[in-house]
Amino acid sequence: MKVGLIGATGYTGVELLRLLAQHPRRPEVSVVTSRQEAGLALTEVFPGLAGLANYDSLVFEAPEQAAGRAEVFFLAAPHGAASALAPGLLAAGARVIDLSADFRLKDPAVFAEWYQPHPAPGLLSEAVYGLPEIWGAAIGRSRLVANPGCYPTTAILGLAPLVKAGLMAENQPVIVDSASGVTGAGRGALLGTSFCEVADGFKAYKVVGHRHTPEMEQELSALGGRPLTVAFTPHLAPMNRGIMSTIYARLALAVPGEELRSIYLDFYKDAPFVRVRPPGFESRTAEVRGTNFCDLSLYPDPRSGLVKIVSAIDNLCRGASGQALANFNLLNGWAETEGLSLAPLYP
Amino acid sequence: MKVGLIGATGYTGVELLRLLAQHPRRPEVSVVTSRQEAGLALTEVFPGLAGLANYDSLVFEAPEQAAGRAEVFFLAAPHGAASALAPGLLAAGARVIDLSADFRLKDPAVFAEWYQPHPAPGLLSEAVYGLPEIWGAAIGRSRLVANPGCYPTTAILGLAPLVKAGLMAENQPVIVDSASGVTGAGRGALLGTSFCEVADGFKAYKVVGHRHTPEMEQELSALGGRPLTVAFTPHLAPMNRGIMSTIYARLALAVPGEELRSIYLDFYKDAPFVRVRPPGFESRTAEVRGTNFCDLSLYPDPRSGLVKIVSAIDNLCRGASGQALANFNLLNGWAETEGLSLAPLYP
Amino acid sequence: MKVGLIGATGYTGVELLRLLAQHPRRPEVSVVTSRQEAGLALTEVFPGLAGLANYDSLVFEAPEQAAGRAEVFFLAAPHGAASALAPGLLAAGARVIDLSADFRLKDPAVFAEWYQPHPAPGLLSEAVYGLPEIWGAAIGRSRLVANPGCYPTTAILGLAPLVKAGLMAENQPVIVDSASGVTGAGRGALLGTSFCEVADGFKAYKVVGHRHTPEMEQELSALGGRPLTVAFTPHLAPMNRGIMSTIYARLALAVPGEELRSIYLDFYKDAPFVRVRPPGFESRTAEVRGTNFCDLSLYPDPRSGLVKIVSAIDNLCRGASGQALANFNLLNGWAETEGLSLAPLYP
Amino acid sequence: MKVGLIGATGYTGVELLRLLAQHPRRPEVSVVTSRQEAGLALTEVFPGLAGLANYDSLVFEAPEQAAGRAEVFFLAAPHGAASALAPGLLAAGARVIDLSADFRLKDPAVFAEWYQPHPAPGLLSEAVYGLPEIWGAAIGRSRLVANPGCYPTTAILGLAPLVKAGLMAENQPVIVDSASGVTGAGRGALLGTSFCEVADGFKAYKVVGHRHTPEMEQELSALGGRPLTVAFTPHLAPMNRGIMSTIYARLALAVPGEELRSIYLDFYKDAPFVRVRPPGFESRTAEVRGTNFCDLSLYPDPRSGLVKIVSAIDNLCRGASGQALANFNLLNGWAETEGLSLAPLYP
Repeated sequence: MKVGLIGATGYTGVELLRLLAQHPRRPEVSVVTSRQEAGLALTEVFPGLAGLANYDSLVFEAPEQAAGRAEVFFLAAPHGAASALAPGLLAAGARVIDLSADFRLKDPAVFAEWYQPHPAPGLLSEAVYGLPEIWGAAIGRSRLVANPGCYPTTAILGLAPLVKAGLMAENQPVIVDSASGVTGAGRGALLGTSFCEVADGFKAYKVVGHRHTPEMEQELSALGGRPLTVAFTPHLAPMNRGIMSTIYARLALAVPGEELRSIYLDFYKDAPFVRVRPPGFESRTAEVRGTNFCDLSLYPDPRSGLVKIVSAIDNLCRGASGQALANFNLLNGWAETEGLSLAPLYP
Repeated sequence: MKVGLIGATGYTGVELLRLLAQHPRRPEVSVVTSRQEAGLALTEVFPGLAGLANYDSLVFEAPEQAAGRAEVFFLAAPHGAASALAPGLLAAGARVIDLSADFRLKDPAVFAEWYQPHPAPGLLSEAVYGLPEIWGAAIGRSRLVANPGCYPTTAILGLAPLVKAGLMAENQPVIVDSASGVTGAGRGALLGTSFCEVADGFKAYKVVGHRHTPEMEQELSALGGRPLTVAFTPHLAPMNRGIMSTIYARLALAVPGEELRSIYLDFYKDAPFVRVRPPGFESRTAEVRGTNFCDLSLYPDPRSGLVKIVSAIDNLCRGASGQALANFNLLNGWAETEGLSLAPLYP
Repeated sequence: MKVGLIGATGYTGVELLRLLAQHPRRPEVSVVTSRQEAGLALTEVFPGLAGLANYDSLVFEAPEQAAGRAEVFFLAAPHGAASALAPGLLAAGARVIDLSADFRLKDPAVFAEWYQPHPAPGLLSEAVYGLPEIWGAAIGRSRLVANPGCYPTTAILGLAPLVKAGLMAENQPVIVDSASGVTGAGRGALLGTSFCEVADGFKAYKVVGHRHTPEMEQELSALGGRPLTVAFTPHLAPMNRGIMSTIYARLALAVPGEELRSIYLDFYKDAPFVRVRPPGFESRTAEVRGTNFCDLSLYPDPRSGLVKIVSAIDNLCRGASGQALANFNLLNGWAETEGLSLAPLYP
Repeated sequence: MKVGLIGATGYTGVELLRLLAQHPRRPEVSVVTSRQEAGLALTEVFPGLAGLANYDSLVFEAPEQAAGRAEVFFLAAPHGAASALAPGLLAAGARVIDLSADFRLKDPAVFAEWYQPHPAPGLLSEAVYGLPEIWGAAIGRSRLVANPGCYPTTAILGLAPLVKAGLMAENQPVIVDSASGVTGAGRGALLGTSFCEVADGFKAYKVVGHRHTPEMEQELSALGGRPLTVAFTPHLAPMNRGIMSTIYARLALAVPGEELRSIYLDFYKDAPFVRVRPPGFESRTAEVRGTNFCDLSLYPDPRSGLVKIVSAIDNLCRGASGQALANFNLLNGWAETEGLSLAPLYP
């Protein structure tokens, strides 16, 4: 099994390489591309990978040279670049797992509203939203997987059982308040993500209108069979990895805590990566660091009439590359957990 | 002016000493107490204070030895200890600024519900809630100031203009989602606040039932003239100082953004420590680090019909010792800003 | 293959469990012990391990209940406790890998000087110092492995080629200046390792007389065939994992940089975990995070006549549990790298 | 007293503004310049300064517009730019405190060797090296102060008493091993100082040939009256502020610890910012955070025959802007400590 990585010099690229190096099926990375670093050895850019797999022999190439050289491509290119590259790769017979936002929204009009007009709208309907707990079967049959965004992964997994069970109050927005590690901003030289600007501080950003909002709404509305509005606020926390979303949901009727928990346990009974935590559990992103787990905790709050749900992932692993690898497993008909039964790096 | 510090070995104690050392009126710290460290020199416990003010000459004493030796006492003792010590200090003629929660709640029944029966319920009605922007005049006349909690400071300042203007929708809880630095947990040896358990991670704690909830509800209900319910969720972020609260409020009617902003600017027109930020501003706790400022940003969110308010302070300064010093200034009839016109330590 | 973990509630214990969960030979953890947590489920203490291997079924037991229930025991008990437990485990037929300092020093007199009189001095001579690059063959034949200290691992690997080649100037101390992450201090509730005391700061500690000094001197003197004195200074850096040692060595004669590098490349030509970096390389602990690698960089400094060597490891993995697992592989006659060909968690 | 800041958008610039805002003599900042941010309001670039001094009214201008508008200028411009600007400011009658390296080296040949040929070599001999403990009297009389580098400040203060007393062994290099916070790298968007590249890690950089070496050697050689070679290694630690230098010195003869300490206490008896710590003290940069203190600890190490000296400062305050303000005080004939008797921001 040969795999190619397009746009492999970002954090999602190097995270894929980390996970592929430990995969028991030993997929061979046959090509890595980077427009900016073309010509440089992989281990020159990422010295931490020296001595692993075939990585000492890989050299970054231009993305145009990739088509036809792998059976599955991971697109870790920036938003916009992915939709330009995917058609060629697909045409050459490969299957594609895209980690950008380019194929996540189904409706070209919604895509155009939040991004720009889509260059390949026909592929929007073909792409499968790569959240294995919801779309596992379809993923296995697809040739184009739209890997979910990091924040939406937490929000959708945190709300899916409630939404699917029809328990949400109508005409009430759900609030998703999230804190993310800095890897979510990518590997680039920006003043806003420099150490001194981020360390020992906390920041709210894109408080209104973050582009992950329509992705959450699309998936949750589809699951529930009726429109659901999300009020989403992301924050930047001084940590490398991790997203914690604290979700505030109003139910149509009061549901006892134990019953709520049963609904979640039942919904996720075949999901190896979702851990529904016991009552009173205080979630920490450290417990999912470097893993593909999503930890969920439920807290009914009778005083306010709300249910609070805390959903924690590693944004780079479960929120990007780990999830992509789970989708890769599904594409190949392997167990979702192959190469992903990882204990957290703790501390 | 002689001041005494009771329970001075915690982070609020050492923060008071930091601020007092720079105060232009040169208040003299005449006594510092600590039950556990009695007999040790102040600069043995806090070597960072060596060479400043009269601190090299101070030795920790038992709290019982403090009465009568200062005109104003700061009580930085643990919850419970403060209410035991305050009556004696007051009886000896001093004025008291209490940094614990012991005198913040007005209603003994509410206090008993969230803590335990109050040992000196008569003082609950006498104590003034020490939020200068709301109770400034009363603070100047009082002899017992209940210094606000760190989280309530962000929530009350963030919501006061809306509540006071009668703009809040009825029968709707307000959501206060907060992230705090670790100094908020105090200076103690606990596994949960050890470096390795906290660094590079994010945690939700006391997700339901945190004791700062009734304090927020008491003050906001009083301001608005009708009961208001708060759904409050604290989180622990890997930073020393800072609290950011993201508040979700539903208004009774739609208010244009500019009008909203005018209401805040007007409410805080005489408040030197509240900075109402321009539209679109992305607040950061780093911009209030080490200061007494509270930075407020407003974000109407038409899609959800909510108003988001981001409120940021330094939990140790504005959320505790800095606010106590502002109250100290008011007690003495000085400008609230004396010794507190501090630029943030940035970065 | 059944393995037991004695004293499994510290960071070295949980790190062993992380690594064992991914080991391709699937060793079964048959018993985990903890005097303090006996009776608690493993995943209650370490919720991050839920859902992995057989960990959901393990319950901490008292260490006395372990003997005879595994073929290999990892002793992750505190210094002192290990030497009390090892004889019984060995007597019951198991092989033991001890992560404490109890069996690292060969000379009972030296041990007594730096610790206290040794309770089982006969075992000191039997134990093999578990540094695979130096003692690999002997480790495979032993039944008691003394896993090296974290700082000595960096210093010995950094200096071994020079010492072995007889290049060190005589009667000149070697300086080892190290910075460690906080996991090196263990998992305990101490004020000195609390988040607020450590974050955003840097500290020198045990500046003279740290107990890892004789361990470095013993091994380097043995390698070189003559006594070598080490001046060692540890520092605490605000990070979870990682040790970087900057070593200052005076050579008996000037050696050109390329020749120096050849000596190192040759010495480590069969060592899969030592990466000798190219000239000018700026080492970072992030590049070994979570791995068993030791990264070495060499910098001849003609102005001072010294050679600087920078040696970087993950203190918890290579400096403790990863190295223990490499020794476990050697005990079993497996490749040293089994289960340890891990890419760093970066970032 | 009007002061101007040239190149005020870096971290040394904003630190100067922090300190000037609290200065009891109320110097007025009459002009702030920035080539890149010219036209922007000061508080647009640094929102944390809003509401302080006259900062809300300041707008960045081009540096060419500054001459003649202040009595003292702080040059916080990059290396190279400072020596181009200083002559014009001096010619217009102002006094100049330069925070760059442009005027620190006395010998044009040495300057050329480590930087490039100096554009105004005549000023090299006129400039006074702005270390108040050594050159205090000369600073008061000068019109051009070369503010010391951050690393040299720690090394020179740490070694001056030994060197001055003629106690250093001859022909032996002194080793200065330092760890710095990230503000030392300046306020710029660089991959190498991005949060994710720095956090939770430790790095050696410019291991041989860092430009602060000749500055240390110049000052220490001058103090001792004979050449002294320094082997200097800087490291980057994941913290905002702070430098700790661990210095290894070989003495010409053995000096008892108490006598060593007396030499230091005597040398610094009139130095308000140097704190010679008691034997066994474990220095931490946190105890000088935000202050102008330099904390010194001495550790004779009889086993190796070396003396270890640990020297800690806040790199941005004592290592740059705080020291500049002390020099500003001296230029004006004020006490060195005015506006600088600051307690550390702890934690």
